[in-house]
Amino acid sequence: MTVPSVLPPTLVGTGDLFQILRDGTPKTRSELAQLTSLARSTITARVDALLSSGLLEPVGEAASTGGRPPTRFALNRRDRVVLAVDLGASHASIAITDLSGRVLDERTIESDIADGPTVVLDRVAEIALGLLEAIGRAVADVAGTGIGVPGPVEHATGRPANPPIMPGWHDFDIPTHLGRRFPGPVLVDNDVNLMALGEYVTTFPSTGHLMLIKVATGIGAGIVTDGRLLRGALGSAGDLGHVQVASASPDVVCRCGNIGCLEAVAAGPAIAARLRDSGLDVDGSQGIVDAVAAGEIVALQAVREAGRDLGSVLATCVNLLNPSVIVIGGKLSEAGEYLLAGVREVVYQRSLPLATHDLQIVGTSAGSRGGILGASAMVIDAVLAPRAIDEYVARRIA
Amino acid sequence: MTVPSVLPPTLVGTGDLFQILRDGTPKTRSELAQLTSLARSTITARVDALLSSGLLEPVGEAASTGGRPPTRFALNRRDRVVLAVDLGASHASIAITDLSGRVLDERTIESDIADGPTVVLDRVAEIALGLLEAIGRAVADVAGTGIGVPGPVEHATGRPANPPIMPGWHDFDIPTHLGRRFPGPVLVDNDVNLMALGEYVTTFPSTGHLMLIKVATGIGAGIVTDGRLLRGALGSAGDLGHVQVASASPDVVCRCGNIGCLEAVAAGPAIAARLRDSGLDVDGSQGIVDAVAAGEIVALQAVREAGRDLGSVLATCVNLLNPSVIVIGGKLSEAGEYLLAGVREVVYQRSLPLATHDLQIVGTSAGSRGGILGASAMVIDAVLAPRAIDEYVARRIA
Repeated sequence: MTVPSVLPPTLVGTGDLFQILRDGTPKTRSELAQLTSLARSTITARVDALLSSGLLEPVGEAASTGGRPPTRFALNRRDRVVLAVDLGASHASIAITDLSGRVLDERTIESDIADGPTVVLDRVAEIALGLLEAIGRAVADVAGTGIGVPGPVEHATGRPANPPIMPGWHDFDIPTHLGRRFPGPVLVDNDVNLMALGEYVTTFPSTGHLMLIKVATGIGAGIVTDGRLLRGALGSAGDLGHVQVASASPDVVCRCGNIGCLEAVAAGPAIAARLRDSGLDVDGSQGIVDAVAAGEIVALQAVREAGRDLGSVLATCVNLLNPSVIVIGGKLSEAGEYLLAGVREVVYQRSLPLATHDLQIVGTSAGSRGGILGASAMVIDAVLAPRAIDEYVARRIA
Repeated sequence: MTVPSVLPPTLVGTGDLFQILRDGTPKTRSELAQLTSLARSTITARVDALLSSGLLEPVGEAASTGGRPPTRFALNRRDRVVLAVDLGASHASIAITDLSGRVLDERTIESDIADGPTVVLDRVAEIALGLLEAIGRAVADVAGTGIGVPGPVEHATGRPANPPIMPGWHDFDIPTHLGRRFPGPVLVDNDVNLMALGEYVTTFPSTGHLMLIKVATGIGAGIVTDGRLLRGALGSAGDLGHVQVASASPDVVCRCGNIGCLEAVAAGPAIAARLRDSGLDVDGSQGIVDAVAAGEIVALQAVREAGRDLGSVLATCVNLLNPSVIVIGGKLSEAGEYLLAGVREVVYQRSLPLATHDLQIVGTSAGSRGGILGASAMVIDAVLAPRAIDEYVARRIA
């Protein structure tokens, strides 16, 4: 149990009060007083401080009960911007969002993660500067930077930890490197974690318990429990690719050396190899998606079977974590209902009735944008937290 | 993302300050001022309020730097007591602890959960009153009650949810029933969750990520992540008993109707049945433990094999949750190293190197007391939280 630190008494309360206004729903001073049982004079002082800092703005008037109608206040989403980055094996997506997570501008480029951290991050920084200029915002307006990478990360320090497909990135201090070019915190996480967070905040905000599975060249999961990302002791939680599939044939040897791993039966390369064995010339996950779109029966069957294998592992996850939503994302999810159908078939058969009572299994809504939306959400959560707000207000109105 | 509510300004800070003193390490006013950057006068006012309420007490003096030596203050563990209850299928353990979780008195009785909620809870209440009297404490001294039950619970309301072995308990309002007899909050959770919490706070407090597996007539898990219990959307998280074991023979049919469930191969009844097939006359988990203690080779082999089956499911849990400690508890864990050895063998073989890097797999330290220690910890965490402290202090010094 962590001991929360204590704020200087002169600041206590402003950041707390702000939390009520974070969702963007405008409120009057009276409504704030009612919600908090703070004295009217205290509310006025804190609202004034938030207005001076720029974080709050007046938005129209409430119905009057006689006399001058009271003003409503809400989060000024444009006060600052967030830099959100999603790095993949061969691409980089860079976006600027406002403080509500709305994308103001974005760009996706081809970028090889194997170019190493300095080259890739400097490339990303240049594009971010271009985007800021295009929308007429200054570097000083950046509240913070969120960045997703395709490998395990020690979230507390923002350093990748032995990432298998990111040569040269192990233990690289991403926050210090990017922090030289942009103000505010630089937060780093695994790309699948951020996809899960993105799906959670944009599509299922009222659901505290969600899993997102990315099915592509590899298979990984991001887990949200009680509204927070579950990262585990060393940040490797959600690593589903090498879980043993009960239904797998014992002669399936994975590249990791074990037998029957989920990736060895249900990821893109395994399905593509099976299709080639059946005489269908496909290459990679895109080839599988194309073959399904073209109605090739063997491709439909293979994708559905991969869904069943994935479902067999997800049934265990459902019993273990009791999520209310499972989102299937990644390139292979573009094969449409066939993958989902296989997953549903086995999960609903193998999981406990209580655990599947309210369970939804759905395709991704955010799609390839999930990573940047999650990166933005991670930063917003940090820079709009009570203490961060207290510090920001104190600095702005000093 | 939940919006924290805001405290009345006159009270802000006392409960927060108290968090620093919760661990029982005595501190002077100067040390508190240094740790919090609160003004000395504010510290004095809040320490005085906590002293008046009885929650804080002076404990000896610090080394003087000249002049009168400063006083150190610490949590007064005896200010109030906690009522901790662990209900099993056929027993009830009732304990009174102080505010640090130390057991002051306890009693375990035979009690059939099938007697129904009114009978069982009234029985528990009578014993609790006897224990309070025996240690010379009044009912009014009870800060709160924690209770573990052998089935799924909706934690927010304290009502069991379709518990399979608790006839008559479905949807029963335990907090209201016990709240008529004891002051403070009545918190209810699944017994295995509380065993996990008990092991966490008493033996692995510096570990944020722990799993406890109870292996007895059934198999279930309690999961602590980031120092909090993971309960899932409907409170059924950790339900491992009906997860499919990859290595299980396809002709093992579970009582749930599925094949290859963990309980059907590795729980007490399954092992006992196998031993009887080998000509060893054992009955239930205790019989297995006795046969292992007697050195029966087939029993050692069967328990080790059950450990391997359990390990095959736990390997998946390790990849999914990345815990740093797995604790094996429940009756069958009394079979000693044989069960643990089987678990370790498969987990270290099947899990990813990063996930097992710092992983400990150990037997339980709290043993059968884990449930009451967890029940006490759950209550202490609630009644010593900042807002609860603010309310308590306000009431006591009014």
